[in-house]
Order: sequence, then C-alpha cells, then structure tokens
Amino acid sequence: MAELHNDRFLRALMRQPVDVTPVWMMRQAGRYLPEYRATRAQAGDFMSLCKNPELACEVTLQPLERYPLDAAILFSDILTIPDAMGLGLSFEAGEGPRFAHPVRDAAAVRALGVPDPEGELRYVMDAVRTIRGALAGKVPLIGFSGSPWTLATYMVEGGSTKEYAHVKGMLYGEPGLMHQLLATVADSVTTYLNAQVAAGAQALMIFDTWGGVLTPRDYKAFSLDYMQRIVDGLTREAEGRKVPVILFTKGGGAWLEAMADTGCDGLGVDWTVNLGDARARVGDRVALQGNMDPSVLYAPPERIRKEVATILESFGPGNGHVFNLGHGIHQHVDPAHAGAFIDAVHELSAPYHDPGDDAEPAL
Amino acid sequence: MAELHNDRFLRALMRQPVDVTPVWMMRQAGRYLPEYRATRAQAGDFMSLCKNPELACEVTLQPLERYPLDAAILFSDILTIPDAMGLGLSFEAGEGPRFAHPVRDAAAVRALGVPDPEGELRYVMDAVRTIRGALAGKVPLIGFSGSPWTLATYMVEGGSTKEYAHVKGMLYGEPGLMHQLLATVADSVTTYLNAQVAAGAQALMIFDTWGGVLTPRDYKAFSLDYMQRIVDGLTREAEGRKVPVILFTKGGGAWLEAMADTGCDGLGVDWTVNLGDARARVGDRVALQGNMDPSVLYAPPERIRKEVATILESFGPGNGHVFNLGHGIHQHVDPAHAGAFIDAVHELSAPYHDPGDDAEPAL
Repeated sequence: MAELHNDRFLRALMRQPVDVTPVWMMRQAGRYLPEYRATRAQAGDFMSLCKNPELACEVTLQPLERYPLDAAILFSDILTIPDAMGLGLSFEAGEGPRFAHPVRDAAAVRALGVPDPEGELRYVMDAVRTIRGALAGKVPLIGFSGSPWTLATYMVEGGSTKEYAHVKGMLYGEPGLMHQLLATVADSVTTYLNAQVAAGAQALMIFDTWGGVLTPRDYKAFSLDYMQRIVDGLTREAEGRKVPVILFTKGGGAWLEAMADTGCDGLGVDWTVNLGDARARVGDRVALQGNMDPSVLYAPPERIRKEVATILESFGPGNGHVFNLGHGIHQHVDPAHAGAFIDAVHELSAPYHDPGDDAEPAL
Repeated sequence: MAELHNDRFLRALMRQPVDVTPVWMMRQAGRYLPEYRATRAQAGDFMSLCKNPELACEVTLQPLERYPLDAAILFSDILTIPDAMGLGLSFEAGEGPRFAHPVRDAAAVRALGVPDPEGELRYVMDAVRTIRGALAGKVPLIGFSGSPWTLATYMVEGGSTKEYAHVKGMLYGEPGLMHQLLATVADSVTTYLNAQVAAGAQALMIFDTWGGVLTPRDYKAFSLDYMQRIVDGLTREAEGRKVPVILFTKGGGAWLEAMADTGCDGLGVDWTVNLGDARARVGDRVALQGNMDPSVLYAPPERIRKEVATILESFGPGNGHVFNLGHGIHQHVDPAHAGAFIDAVHELSAPYHDPGDDAEPAL
C-alpha cells in the first residue's frame, strides 16, 4: 500500500498533535456536487451506483479533487447489510429506502444469517480496494456501517418511519425477539467492518441515526450495548497502525460519557451540543468529531467562517478534534460554500495547534 | 363559570399536593379515535374542523368521554396565527401544512401584522368559550400556541421541512430580519394566548416543536428569548386562580434549566430524558409534564403499565408531576391501550402522594 501523505485525521483521532485541525464532511460525496449527479445518472439508480466499485470509487474521490479534505469516506449505503440478508432493498424516487420483506416476527428473525463480506457484500470490499488504490496515500479512507439499532429500525419498519410503530412495538412488546435481531445484526456489522479493514479501510465509523429516539435506558440496552459488542470485536490495528473507531448517535448528546466508555476512539457530535462542554465531559478519553450545523452552509462564506471560528474556540487549544458537520451536507448547498468551510477550518485552526518545539506556543 | 370539580392538573402545575398524579395526552383529541375521524369527515378538511367552534368543542370532549383524563386541551392547530396573518394555509392530503405565501424577505416580514384574536382568530376564542361551557367544570381547559421559532419555521419554509434551508438561511444569513419576524410572531402569540385566557382557558402551553434543531446559542437567541418575552407578557391569573404556563421544546432536554428560568410554571419533557434526572436539575422551580414514549402504547397493556410504574418511580414521591406522553399520541394506537395508560397512572401513582395529615406517609 502507498505511504500515507496526510495523516492529520488519524492523528487527531488518536489525540496526537497536528499542524491544523483535520476536516471532512459527512456525505461529502453527494448530490450537492454536479459531478456526483452526473455519475449517478450514468449508474442508474442509487444502489447500482453503490454496487459498482469503479463508479463508487469515482464519486468517493470527487470531493477530494475539489477540496483539500483530510479524509475520504467509502461511498456506500448503511442498508447494504440488510440488503445482503435478502430483505429486498429498493429506493423509490423521493420515497427513501424500502424493503420488500420487513422483519416482523420470530420466524423472520430466525431466518436471518450473517452475510459473507466477500460473498454477497463483495462489491463493498471491491470498492474499498479500488478506492485505496486510487487514493495512493493522499488521505486515509474511512469505512462505515449503520448501528445495529438503526439497521433494525429499517429492517422492522420496512423503510423510513416517523412513528416507529413496528420497531418500537417489537422493542416494548417482544424485547427478547428484538435482542435476538440486534445480536445477529451486530455480528454482521462486526464481520462487515473487519472485512473493510482487511480490504484497506484505515478508520471506521458507526452511524447510529436512530439511537436518539430511545429513552436513556433503552438507548443503553438496545443501541449502545450492541455498538459496544461491535467495538469489542473489531480489528483495531492494520498496516502497523491503529484503526480508530468513531461512534455517532444523532441526537445522542446526553449520552457522550457512556459512548466514550465503550473504548471507541472518537465520538461524532451534532450541533445541538456545545463542543467545549462535550470536551469537558469526555475529557481526554476520546477525540470529538463535529459539529457545525450543516445549514450554516446556506449562509454567505463570511458567516460560515465566523461559525468555524466559534466552534474552534469552543473546542479550544490542544489535540483531539476532527472538524466536520454535525450531519450530512444538504443537497441544495452551493459547492463553493463547502469550499469556504473547509478552507476556514485549515486557516483558522493553526493558532490552536503548537507549531513545534522550536517555535513559541501559538496561544 | 362552573366550579372546577377536578383541579389536580392545576394543583400539580403549582407543585401543590394531589391525591393521584394527573394525566392527559398531547393530541388526545385525534385520529386514533374513531369518533374523531367521524367528526372530521363531517367537517371536511382539517382547518374546517378547527374553524367550526361546535365541532372543535365536540372533538375536544371526545377523549374525556372515554377516559378519566384530568385536563382538556383546546382542539386547534399551531398554524392559526400565520393563517390569520394572510399566509394562505392549506393541508394537502398526506403532505402536511403548506403556505401559499411563505415569508422570505424583508418586505414580507414588514407586511406582517399582529392578528386580532377577536377578529380573524375569533373562531378560536369561540371554540374556547364553547368548550368551557360544555366542560361545566369537569376538568380545566388548556389553551395553547406554537412558539415563535416554530411558527417562523413554517412561515419561512412554507411548510414542513427536513433541511431548514430557508429558515436557517435567514437565521444565519440575515439574523436581524429573523429577529424582526420573531418579535412580530411573539407579540402575536402573547395577544393570542391572553385572549384565550380571557375566553376561558385555565392553563397555557407553548409548543416549541423545532427549538431542538438549533445550536445551544441559537436556541437561546432565536427560540427561548422569545418564549421568555411571551411568558413576561401573559395574564397569569384569571377567575381568582393562577393560570399556569407550560413550555415544551421537543428535543430540548439539555436546556431545561434555562427554560425553568423563564418563570414558567411547568416544562414538558420528552422521553429521551430521565424524569428523575430532570427533576434533580430543575429542583422545585417548575413542575414537569411527561414523559412516556408514545410508542409504548403499541405494546400490550401490561407493558404500558410497567412503563408508567418506571416513570412514576423515576419522578419519585412529592408534588409537581403531570403525567403525559413525551409527544402526541400516534394515529395507529389502539384506543384501549390509551385507556390502560391513563388508568395505570391513576392507580399506580397514589402511593407517591400523601393521603393527608391523619394517615401514615405512603412511602
């Protein structure tokens, strides 16, 4: 494998010194980029794009050609695992994901197996290998998965939901069955993420999109405990380097301490939390990734710059910050505004980092 | 006005002793009830139901005929104020609310006036008067409004949104204009709620549905400060009795202390917060209302009962708890499950309240 030229992202996740704060954007390969829309049109539907390693590689690299980002993230979808389990995933225009065979009873849960990452999910591993080759050491590649609770939500509901009738019906009404489902999904995620590392992923992120809709007690029992199980089972070193793991529960700002206790390396933080407060709470146990409101990118570049400055000041000097949005970039954002955001992070963060032993401390 | 026969709800909000914990449900007059669906079909569309005081009274009372609820809440919509401002509200089937004339620039903000509660909004006050008469003192009547930030979100977006592109574009890009809009809306809400009290509302609730999508700093500046302005301007006594005010920011669990500091009487709490923790944080400054996950109502009655017991135990003995769901009841809930919930609150809460000076303390 090519030597890594820019390891700021990995160093920040290990809370090691960096010259400037590294930055990437969730959903950075996405619809706000005209070149993404062109490639997607070529692929046909969304899953065809995910399942084509060459095109997945192409869209993964697109934002890196525009912006000096410090990490690439595998272009894929969180629903690849349930799709590989045979649930029949499709994306209807404007409707979001839909499963032909939702998992609603004991027979359906029992029928689920752990998909083979180099079998049904080989297209994902091929994409990881292709992207790693194409990156040629420019920046590290992040692999990812949905959290067990988040995947289970889609699997039981059969798609997106506002009311969680089926999945919470199962959680509250048949908790044993829900645990059985989550255990199978957690084992599948562990296997899947370890295969991504074997294929070349240099960091991992687990997206818990729906953990924030649970009570504190149920969050622990039905979401966090299964992320813990995954963290415990992950390959944490590859190519002679630590493979850091980031957990991100959207709306999980109240539970950062418990998330840090899993032994992960970093926590994604959304914008409803003050980053300085979050840092004070988790201390030096984990790095923090975030947390600008993606809607700030609708504002003029000078306002974006001001918000970046506010967040850098909130985190303060020292190690352990990866700058990011608090959620995926929106599709109607002007790509020039994303560029202003990334430049602002690099330019404004230098004073928060020690330039080296020979120099005066910057702050 | 008829004497109030059941004042548990008002007493609990004043943190005074009660025999059992009072309970009501957000959206208790709603689609889960077949009798509601019948009345709504008779009215035609949703706004026609809101604008017909007789039918609004009918649906307000329907849940009270089924269940021993401790409060009634005016049947209306949070968007009556922007509708009265001339924004042209309609509800498309399955689409949610839509405004024909969204407020997107300075001219549109300047054109907004404070609606006359006994003019364009007289139908709401007529509904309050009709319901008060029909209740005949059975339980108190809650009046309500959306928060300025929540109303502004709909007014600027022109409907529901997932990305908040327009409203956050204005917040971040033209904060002065956003403040001007919020000031007009806050004055309208104050006038509107005071008119509801004059018409007979015995308690008030402000629904801040979208405050939870803001950063902590913006929540204070763009949502909480305007709720403060309303609280400061409200009539707090009527018919010789305090008119308590409840603030509810969905997803606002991190900001309960600041909300309590407004001088309101109660805080709505959603289920992502442990109620005992919330009580420890706000002390005896305010009562708490909540906080069962409405999805628990999909589970069997014995599971519902268990969740009620857990929440009562979490709040603990003493005064200042109004039981409620943490959000509106869902449309697909079995009405019998709602009944099991309400009965469980009354039955299981008695041991948490002191039966009187002559008896042994219950706990």
